[in-house]
Amino acid sequence: MTTADRSPGRHPGVGRVRPGSGPPARLFNSAVASYAVVTAWEVGLLDEMRASGRLDIPRFAREHDLHEPSVRAVLQALEWAEVVRVTDDADEAKPGDAFAEVYATKGFFGWLLGGCGELLRTGGTVARGGSQGRARIRRDAGRIGTGTADFGRQFIDPVLHRMLEEIDYTCVVDLGCGNGDRLVSAVLARPGSRGVGVDIAPDAIEAARRRVAEAGLLDRVALVEADARRLEPRPEFADVDLATCFLMGHDFWPREDCVAVLAGLRTVFPRLRDVALGDTYRSGEAPGPELPILTLGFEYVHALMGRYVPSLDEWRDVFPDSGWRCHAEHDVTLPPNTKIFHLVPAC
Amino acid sequence: MTTADRSPGRHPGVGRVRPGSGPPARLFNSAVASYAVVTAWEVGLLDEMRASGRLDIPRFAREHDLHEPSVRAVLQALEWAEVVRVTDDADEAKPGDAFAEVYATKGFFGWLLGGCGELLRTGGTVARGGSQGRARIRRDAGRIGTGTADFGRQFIDPVLHRMLEEIDYTCVVDLGCGNGDRLVSAVLARPGSRGVGVDIAPDAIEAARRRVAEAGLLDRVALVEADARRLEPRPEFADVDLATCFLMGHDFWPREDCVAVLAGLRTVFPRLRDVALGDTYRSGEAPGPELPILTLGFEYVHALMGRYVPSLDEWRDVFPDSGWRCHAEHDVTLPPNTKIFHLVPAC
Repeated sequence: MTTADRSPGRHPGVGRVRPGSGPPARLFNSAVASYAVVTAWEVGLLDEMRASGRLDIPRFAREHDLHEPSVRAVLQALEWAEVVRVTDDADEAKPGDAFAEVYATKGFFGWLLGGCGELLRTGGTVARGGSQGRARIRRDAGRIGTGTADFGRQFIDPVLHRMLEEIDYTCVVDLGCGNGDRLVSAVLARPGSRGVGVDIAPDAIEAARRRVAEAGLLDRVALVEADARRLEPRPEFADVDLATCFLMGHDFWPREDCVAVLAGLRTVFPRLRDVALGDTYRSGEAPGPELPILTLGFEYVHALMGRYVPSLDEWRDVFPDSGWRCHAEHDVTLPPNTKIFHLVPAC
Repeated sequence: MTTADRSPGRHPGVGRVRPGSGPPARLFNSAVASYAVVTAWEVGLLDEMRASGRLDIPRFAREHDLHEPSVRAVLQALEWAEVVRVTDDADEAKPGDAFAEVYATKGFFGWLLGGCGELLRTGGTVARGGSQGRARIRRDAGRIGTGTADFGRQFIDPVLHRMLEEIDYTCVVDLGCGNGDRLVSAVLARPGSRGVGVDIAPDAIEAARRRVAEAGLLDRVALVEADARRLEPRPEFADVDLATCFLMGHDFWPREDCVAVLAGLRTVFPRLRDVALGDTYRSGEAPGPELPILTLGFEYVHALMGRYVPSLDEWRDVFPDSGWRCHAEHDVTLPPNTKIFHLVPAC
């Protein structure tokens, strides 16, 4: 057994093993460091370091009621990835060369590992055919929401806000409103406007209600627990003239379903004039060293879930058949392969 | 918000963000690829590719009743890490430059992500003080066992077998026997010898019983479900003259407990003359680019679980106080920072 395992392989590429370093070590250590990013974010370590430019390790653990050896292990993994540097006396940590970039992209790590980690861990079972595997699909909706909100706020919302400045709206619906942040911003940006948030998750509706209340907008914003793919007309929808919909458009597919959902919007929202549909499309990129963040994980997770991710061309092609015209396409920096389509009625 | 997020930081190291590529992308993609290694192993893809030197993707999915888009996503992630190459027509995959090394070390990925992935995912909760966090510690014992068995068989057992050739034994106990592989090998290696397997996990005892039956050793091997740290003398233990114990010695700590366990072995096994104690010790290494596989994850996982990992010096120091003398130290290639201590009675 061991002789065979360590001998030169029988086939090209199955060569002699130099165990324990090189590619496997980098992959393995990166997986640990990626989890450390998520944990460091969730316990407040990344924010503390960003705010203070340093971290007093024992004090941070004490003040946040954290198990100090765990905090030190997280920092050790972050240090491997050059996200932090731990001082020689080992009681202080400072931002490392990769800190700013990792801080900005922490939401992607939260989405992948906090949100979809259990799906990835059970991938072997999930990939098995039939309902047994499918039944094992488990994601953490709350942490998916926190992750997407973090990168959405930084990279998507500024583009959306510039778009909204050029759109005349009085009542905006956000389909898949999550924690309500984006909806609240859109309503606040337009004096006198109203809003409706739609989300399938009761927890999201609860969070959005708190956000709307904090913003003092309870009299201007309605919240509806519903599946955005299966909406019926309602009184709250009567005056909606702008719809926003972010990072869920791929859930409308396959194509014939997407046509039905997009065409249906004009029935459900009879005064709808503009749609801002932002989504990540299938990259079609070969997985080389320049592959940016998210793409590989986004396509992997959706494949495991059996969800189709349309390409850019498929998106462009579906609008005319759904009664919409794409007035403009706006790129965002991140996520990669993501556009905000500005749709207007085709006629 | 977004202006602040994208402006140069207020502190050194919190600099301008160049989002989406560089370190965060490599970390993120490595985490995806690491999970792909585990899933590819578990669905038989790695073994098929090693045996055949290639993989017919649609046929492999069909014959193993696997969801083909999931198989393709796994291969895409493995291709990013150069573990495989997918041909231009995209229906065949071949081993990539990193295949042999990743194949040899797949057990470490299975241990980390299959075995401890849910612990890592809930690290933020676990790290919180008090029993609430501690209660969230969840690991998958079966997949931990499969992972450690895979690298143990390749890298530890050959060293152990050379050791055993020089030890005169008639009855061997394996403490923490897992699936029974190591115990069966030790008994088979010495004609007429007998064995006892001890494990705390009922599933492990079941698996070991099957292994012993397969080897036709039911009349020579006894299996005992018990905590190796809290053993009492039993008839099965009376003739044991060799004890092996692998990758669990750190569970004997803290020090005073370890002294008690090691000293107790001489009472529990009155004829015990040799102990082969193999374990991974605390590295003390700074987490630089040369850090090998496992170390970072091993120390991270044990920190989260609140388990102490002793250093090499601490191990060397504990033997005399426990009534043992370290007759020899044997290095193994992998895991890194791992020794097999050959202990003999101090007097």
